[in-house]
Amino acid sequence: MSISTDGLERRGGRGARVRILATAHELFRGRGINATGVAELCEAAHVSKRTLYQHFSSKDDVVIAYLGECEGDRRARLVSGELSPRAVLLELFDALGDGPRPLRGDPFAAAAVELADPSHRVHRVAAAAGGRLATRLGELAFEAGARDAERLGRRVALLYEGAAVQTLVADDPAAAAEARTMAAALLDDAIE
Amino acid sequence: MSISTDGLERRGGRGARVRILATAHELFRGRGINATGVAELCEAAHVSKRTLYQHFSSKDDVVIAYLGECEGDRRARLVSGELSPRAVLLELFDALGDGPRPLRGDPFAAAAVELADPSHRVHRVAAAAGGRLATRLGELAFEAGARDAERLGRRVALLYEGAAVQTLVADDPAAAAEARTMAAALLDDAIE
Repeated sequence: MSISTDGLERRGGRGARVRILATAHELFRGRGINATGVAELCEAAHVSKRTLYQHFSSKDDVVIAYLGECEGDRRARLVSGELSPRAVLLELFDALGDGPRPLRGDPFAAAAVELADPSHRVHRVAAAAGGRLATRLGELAFEAGARDAERLGRRVALLYEGAAVQTLVADDPAAAAEARTMAAALLDDAIE
Repeated sequence: MSISTDGLERRGGRGARVRILATAHELFRGRGINATGVAELCEAAHVSKRTLYQHFSSKDDVVIAYLGECEGDRRARLVSGELSPRAVLLELFDALGDGPRPLRGDPFAAAAVELADPSHRVHRVAAAAGGRLATRLGELAFEAGARDAERLGRRVALLYEGAAVQTLVADDPAAAAEARTMAAALLDDAIE
């Protein structure tokens, strides 16, 4: 039995891809997407431009992969396992105020603002993620026994986006706590 | 009596300044702040770089003047004259879905996202405008006879920011209508 060269190459390749994406999280969230050039990204990730373009056909593809990972993380947080659906829904707000300062709010909203043209590929990906968040929140509200759960999901998503922007703009977790209180009240009103 | 040369120069100067700011509104809102270079701004406003730098010491100063005008417009909309304080407060949401497509949401949130560093001069100006909005909404809630008006102001501001982001991200005025309904309910609950 032998390890195939192909396997090794792929493993090395994945290492570079992982490093590029980890660096993308740091720079896109910390400084912004437009403020981060490909050259900088490569330098900070310790890869050559050639390597980056072996893994991603453009910077937009890096951004889309980064948003895909952000959404994966968010989806994982929105699975009701040990916590009740109500608790899972409300935990979303707690996550906003966590993490290193300055607080960066919602990566999808930030990406849609930065890539402002609604027909831009990145903007469309970010908009679709926002829609899926509202849908998932509606499912959780339904599992929690809420009336009019789909609409409630949209309303909680709206509170979440507001808190995310205020968190980012004011670098202050108070908005997330206020939004959480409002979401809890909406949810409790909708449950018998 | 004679028109002083000094007066003429200033009048001419104001013309250029007005053109630069009108163009800034168009480009900053339409394409984004970081995506708009000084050269482009000058070309679209039909002024030389030299003229721009006679009026503004940097691009950041153009952005700050642009945000100042946006805030002046917003403040003017939030004066209760013929309309009741309640109606003025709710009209804010209607304004979100107005205007040319794509809808651009809240210019302050957009600026704070684009100039992501919280210590950046533009970011601080945008954050301060957000705080003043919450304060003004609290005053209107108080005038409308609401209990706990200051907190209500912060809550309505949160709904507004959420709707602004969703409007921008999804290019859909439905979020503004939903947020308006939520704000009206909060207000009515707080008024005897």
